[in-house]
Amino acid sequence: MMGTIENAAGRRVPTEVNGKPVVPYQGVGCYMPTGRHAAPPIRSCAQYPADGNKVAPSLVEALRRAGLADGMVISSHHHFRDGDLLMPQVFAAAAELGVRDLVWFPSATFPCHESFIAYLESGLIHHIEGSLNGPLGRYASQGKMAGQAVLRSHGGRYRALQDGDVHVDIAVIAAPAADAFGNCSGVLGRAACGPLGFALADAQYADHVIVVTDTLVPFPCVPWHIQGNLVDQVVLVERVGDPDRIVSGTTRLTRSSDQLLIAEYAARFVRDAGIMRPGFSFQAGAGGISLAFTIFLGQMMREAGVKARFIRGGSTRYLVELLETGLTDYILDGQSFDLEGVRSLRDNPAHLATSPFTSYNYHGKGNFASLLDCVVLGATEVDVDFNANVVTHSDGLLLHGIGGWQDALFARCTILTVPSFRDRVPIIRDRVTTLCGPGELVDVVVTERGIAINPRRQDLFAVLAGSSLPLRSLQELKSEAEAICGGPPALPRTGERTIGVVSWVDGTILDRVQQVIAEGSK
Amino acid sequence: MMGTIENAAGRRVPTEVNGKPVVPYQGVGCYMPTGRHAAPPIRSCAQYPADGNKVAPSLVEALRRAGLADGMVISSHHHFRDGDLLMPQVFAAAAELGVRDLVWFPSATFPCHESFIAYLESGLIHHIEGSLNGPLGRYASQGKMAGQAVLRSHGGRYRALQDGDVHVDIAVIAAPAADAFGNCSGVLGRAACGPLGFALADAQYADHVIVVTDTLVPFPCVPWHIQGNLVDQVVLVERVGDPDRIVSGTTRLTRSSDQLLIAEYAARFVRDAGIMRPGFSFQAGAGGISLAFTIFLGQMMREAGVKARFIRGGSTRYLVELLETGLTDYILDGQSFDLEGVRSLRDNPAHLATSPFTSYNYHGKGNFASLLDCVVLGATEVDVDFNANVVTHSDGLLLHGIGGWQDALFARCTILTVPSFRDRVPIIRDRVTTLCGPGELVDVVVTERGIAINPRRQDLFAVLAGSSLPLRSLQELKSEAEAICGGPPALPRTGERTIGVVSWVDGTILDRVQQVIAEGSK
Repeated sequence: MMGTIENAAGRRVPTEVNGKPVVPYQGVGCYMPTGRHAAPPIRSCAQYPADGNKVAPSLVEALRRAGLADGMVISSHHHFRDGDLLMPQVFAAAAELGVRDLVWFPSATFPCHESFIAYLESGLIHHIEGSLNGPLGRYASQGKMAGQAVLRSHGGRYRALQDGDVHVDIAVIAAPAADAFGNCSGVLGRAACGPLGFALADAQYADHVIVVTDTLVPFPCVPWHIQGNLVDQVVLVERVGDPDRIVSGTTRLTRSSDQLLIAEYAARFVRDAGIMRPGFSFQAGAGGISLAFTIFLGQMMREAGVKARFIRGGSTRYLVELLETGLTDYILDGQSFDLEGVRSLRDNPAHLATSPFTSYNYHGKGNFASLLDCVVLGATEVDVDFNANVVTHSDGLLLHGIGGWQDALFARCTILTVPSFRDRVPIIRDRVTTLCGPGELVDVVVTERGIAINPRRQDLFAVLAGSSLPLRSLQELKSEAEAICGGPPALPRTGERTIGVVSWVDGTILDRVQQVIAEGSK
Repeated sequence: MMGTIENAAGRRVPTEVNGKPVVPYQGVGCYMPTGRHAAPPIRSCAQYPADGNKVAPSLVEALRRAGLADGMVISSHHHFRDGDLLMPQVFAAAAELGVRDLVWFPSATFPCHESFIAYLESGLIHHIEGSLNGPLGRYASQGKMAGQAVLRSHGGRYRALQDGDVHVDIAVIAAPAADAFGNCSGVLGRAACGPLGFALADAQYADHVIVVTDTLVPFPCVPWHIQGNLVDQVVLVERVGDPDRIVSGTTRLTRSSDQLLIAEYAARFVRDAGIMRPGFSFQAGAGGISLAFTIFLGQMMREAGVKARFIRGGSTRYLVELLETGLTDYILDGQSFDLEGVRSLRDNPAHLATSPFTSYNYHGKGNFASLLDCVVLGATEVDVDFNANVVTHSDGLLLHGIGGWQDALFARCTILTVPSFRDRVPIIRDRVTTLCGPGELVDVVVTERGIAINPRRQDLFAVLAGSSLPLRSLQELKSEAEAICGGPPALPRTGERTIGVVSWVDGTILDRVQQVIAEGSK
């Protein structure tokens, strides 16, 4: 059995993961990397068709030409979200070629990948090295996956490829549109999904890059979100994605009065704390609270005549509206959550595609995340020291990916918006089930029962003195929720096995995720 | 003394250059690279300011912080052409720091760099590893430069950095506009110059990257032709470039009747050979003949109702006019030669910035050059086997850089437009003074006295049977010019010393350039 060690966050973490030694978390900004970037093999134009036509006749043939073999690492991106129709075809093709023990390295998984459990069972896929949402997370939590899940943020995944922690043999890039040379655009074609930044690291660092599209256009396919010069082969298939499940025509707003109250508190906080000032910047996602926050803040900006310099997407129609009504100079967008986001990215030069390289790579020369004046994020749990969890629930089940959550914590003011309890389970804990974000990076926790400011941010207390906002302590909010719910949640019954680890943005190991023993099983 | 060897083109070339072993040219597409790309050091956001402000107080201080030391390689790009006001400041700052034996690795040199001869004399600059135009070339030709010039094409320079043949310690990027994070735009600011692609490899592969601008804008500076995530420091200076000498308001047309005739022949050739067909593509530069060719071909396209899919820049007002009048879908632009080119790149989404990576890198997975239906290029000499020279004249003096010339030879039809003689010196030779491009890649030579098609292109002879174009052989054209000029030019009086080498696009050594002994010197 492998060893464990206590890291700087006081968590016991394994010293090796999937057979490779790893470094324990050492504190924010404490681990200094050495060495040089990973480097792909040097190719020559003499090895590629002079007319630029890299089209292979089928996925099976493309994988064969790529030299697919047992144990290889296959990567993919998740811009198609739950509408991914490609990776099922890729693994079916791999199965046809009779290989085994592949490692799948996706940028995220979705419920549509539930069928891959059969491949994990058959041995086609040895393990999934990445975030595990929903069904796959539940499967791994039960201790059924052969290897260990390595949970990385979007930036952490870019970094892992850049730093050579993960070596991808074959990258598969789902492209809404591409030309025969391999240039890919995310804003054309029937599966248009917006930016393609999650595939950038794969295109840059994989040994072999296969682009798959259902919309082949004449060279040049522009804007080339992925450049064909990084691409080995192009495959045309009937369908790569289901538009209805990639982006929705309208992003859904919450009707929950609690969620609306949290969003309003967060927006008022941003305004009253003086963060909402001319030229400021913010990021909020596409969840119910985040969308409502964006709408509330937009109203306040309009009332006060305050224009932002930039807003970070995931883009939605609400962000696009802020851009189009002159309330921000730019949207910097990593993924589009609805069709308005895709349209705006396609047509508006002030709507810019970004990538985990520009926005989130911690082993870069700075990144965009720390330039943001504030970010609004969710969490599954927060502890009284502002440490937070975003991957497991209090029952210990691994059900969510990290996304860009860890990366975004580096904003000047990080606001977690959480209900004080969910399904009668209190969210504020003495100790989070799984540590994903160190409390020193969390500035504010906003619940429907009040707002807790991190004691490290005395400046925020000062500026909000006399505010009508309900400022509370996390301890108070915790006690109140526990009183309502009948005490803190029971600890999950976990097994010996470490089924996954949470990687920090610098690649060190922040925490581990243990197997969960269900009632009645052993 | 170092050894020489005869390469596959029958040229004697050195086996080492500036103390490093080199590979002799082996034929087009014959040399297969091994190994992996160069890889810059891994950095951490913890080493950079969280607010993204990378501004250093001065050039001297930036160089000091970058660790400038004796013998380091300093790179720069030439988008400011003869209006470069930055590199004189950089080397003055380096002189202030008291270092010696620097290697300057520019993407091109211009007459404005003549003053650097003093630095070559003083030992501040040991040698210039790059194309040497005009005064610097003459200086090197006289055998006065300490090291050897390594003449690479734009693509070859990208490749040399990518493959690790050249390791840059400090890259200096002149930016018409930048933000404090280091994002650079070539279309804003008073020194707006268009694309910044020549600086891409430097930004990607140098150990340390310094951006220098005279126009600092709030984050984000867009379009970010160079991404700030690659940048270590930003320096604000009074002026980086002289707009009048970077781009001209109007690109000058030739009035030479010979040049106009050559241009017209070339355009008629492209039309009559069936290259000018719907969806075709071409590239022509900004020289007198090339501009006139573009105008002639544009007229023919308009008359025939033929629209191009894309035209490769360097962009000029004439290319922009083709785009704006619907005669091409796209301009793919590596550098803007006039203000109309800059404006169009800034405002027209169909005018795309490219780089030596996308367009010219021979050690990539294909590049754009070979996708072109035809390219029109100049030459200083052509031999009867279609081999061509672009760096020296028949007097042996090194006076020109290679530019993108070698890279562009890979177009489907490569047309060299040359006068049959210049200053009573015949251009068509039995053997070119310096070999820069293998004859097998040259399809057509167009002179004012007739058009010679490479015998390898029997298809072109066939399609032009019965054409009114004056088809001749190179031997005929040569004899005719020699009769007029009184025989072939005298061979230059060269010394023992190899003052430079011509690198082929794959990094092998195609030819050497010898010291020229002037009359009266020894």
